[in-house]
Amino acid sequence: MRINLKEAAEFLKSCKDAVIITHQSPDGDCIGAGFALRDILAMLGIRSRVICSDEFPKRYAFMTKTGWGEDFEPQTVIAVDIADTQLMGNLREEYENKVDLCIDHHISNIEYAERLLLDPDAAATCELIYELAKELGVELTDHCAACIYTGIATDTGCFKYECTTVRSHEIAAELMRNHKIRYATINREMFDVKSIGRLKMERIVTDLMEYYLDNKVTMICITNKILNELGVDANDLDGCASIPLQVEGVEVGITIKEREDGAFKVSMRSADDVNVSAICQKLGGGGHVKAAGCLVTGTLEEVKEKLVETVRQSLEVE
Amino acid sequence: MRINLKEAAEFLKSCKDAVIITHQSPDGDCIGAGFALRDILAMLGIRSRVICSDEFPKRYAFMTKTGWGEDFEPQTVIAVDIADTQLMGNLREEYENKVDLCIDHHISNIEYAERLLLDPDAAATCELIYELAKELGVELTDHCAACIYTGIATDTGCFKYECTTVRSHEIAAELMRNHKIRYATINREMFDVKSIGRLKMERIVTDLMEYYLDNKVTMICITNKILNELGVDANDLDGCASIPLQVEGVEVGITIKEREDGAFKVSMRSADDVNVSAICQKLGGGGHVKAAGCLVTGTLEEVKEKLVETVRQSLEVE
Repeated sequence: MRINLKEAAEFLKSCKDAVIITHQSPDGDCIGAGFALRDILAMLGIRSRVICSDEFPKRYAFMTKTGWGEDFEPQTVIAVDIADTQLMGNLREEYENKVDLCIDHHISNIEYAERLLLDPDAAATCELIYELAKELGVELTDHCAACIYTGIATDTGCFKYECTTVRSHEIAAELMRNHKIRYATINREMFDVKSIGRLKMERIVTDLMEYYLDNKVTMICITNKILNELGVDANDLDGCASIPLQVEGVEVGITIKEREDGAFKVSMRSADDVNVSAICQKLGGGGHVKAAGCLVTGTLEEVKEKLVETVRQSLEVE
Repeated sequence: MRINLKEAAEFLKSCKDAVIITHQSPDGDCIGAGFALRDILAMLGIRSRVICSDEFPKRYAFMTKTGWGEDFEPQTVIAVDIADTQLMGNLREEYENKVDLCIDHHISNIEYAERLLLDPDAAATCELIYELAKELGVELTDHCAACIYTGIATDTGCFKYECTTVRSHEIAAELMRNHKIRYATINREMFDVKSIGRLKMERIVTDLMEYYLDNKVTMICITNKILNELGVDANDLDGCASIPLQVEGVEVGITIKEREDGAFKVSMRSADDVNVSAICQKLGGGGHVKAAGCLVTGTLEEVKEKLVETVRQSLEVE
């Protein structure tokens, strides 16, 4: 059942002994929402505990320092930033049918919860947590404010992406006006700091980059042979798919990964105007306008040629 | 003479045929301020022209598309975001003693102009241009709004750095509420896109990186021998000094450059708490808490050892 802000606030006021579930592969928004909500419930005199199927990355430690919450038999189950019960990881079986309230901003939310507070126009679930705190008349602690700020910052790429709204900036301004938030330190940790492993991976990806069609297209071919030579796992290269699009003038970034069976899995990303979903459809795949994929068979050279030719045709039409 | 916002607005209203000077090595803030001010003057019925000693990087083309302004004999000279006449480049001789109004946010401004509107608390000169437009009661065009947004975004690292203020977020919110700004596209161009040359340089810097003291210290040694081998110029590596600090857990990033005379120029940066100015002072140098430098003589090995030892002592005290 969809509920509004006021109803969600009423529910929170009357609940007790709550577990707050965050999603697997936890990010700044679900962690921020979880720990901010825990602070808010504490101010209402309600016990709560944050849980997650996965360990939190170290850089979020400043949010968890107020503690995960004591051990008790939960009376209330709240899910934050979880669009689908699949995203609960190994907590799914225990909780998927027991969620009393879900607070989320994903338009893809499958409405699994008893009560759903959903605002797909919010840039982050943390924006909804902020609105809830206001609705409840709770005065935020600096820690709570930092958690909410972090969730908004991480989901918007520090106010960089399309999803950023007027409201995102307004909430950031209000939080910074009324609280001591170490935003520069937080942002450095969230956006600038990389592990030594990640730096190495970026180097590998940069080395593998091939340029086509007057440098409008970049391609990275990750074959099993290359992985063996480098001694890395294909998964290690995940998250590097955005690097080709960082190159000046590039319109389409393509990543090709060789599968065990010799077929090639193609990921295609568009920097701006090119519709890569349409390109991938021509090759039997599909996806979104700016991020799509397909599966192509043949030798690596044949696959590369086919891809470049298909992209060339699309660029000419535009 | 220092003047306030109201006085600066009055001056702008009564001026005519203005040249607007932007600083050498132009960035998003001075270009944004220059072209936004040109829009504002146009709405007041005042002719103006933007000038600069250097060519503008291509990524700023969306700001200059309204035109640089016609050719006329200037009656008024306005400098934006220029703290010192030295920063006028080859326009200095002609204009340094003729600036009627300077609009700036650098605390280091040397007060060279007849009238100075200075707010060191502003994150960007573009924030002052926005306040001026409000004071003048001018309704901004979308282009003007995009210029102001870009200046604030670039000077704050997209709202990431310490210099970001409540006001920065508030102005961003107001601009986005009232105007159509392609902020995601602008931010991609400003922050994510890199030239092929820059990517290669980052790779070189990553390759040169050495780790000390449990990876708390990273060091890059740029010797003349290495530059010769790589076939690059020391200047090509400028702007890469921030890369060592991107590594997880690093507290101090050191860049050593060999000079022609064999001495080593040392730049030291601090990620957070370590005072690198104090460290560099011990070695006869100095600077700011988070960015300092010194000159050290000896063989490369001796210099490295001396640096690591001095940093080690400082880290132990903390």
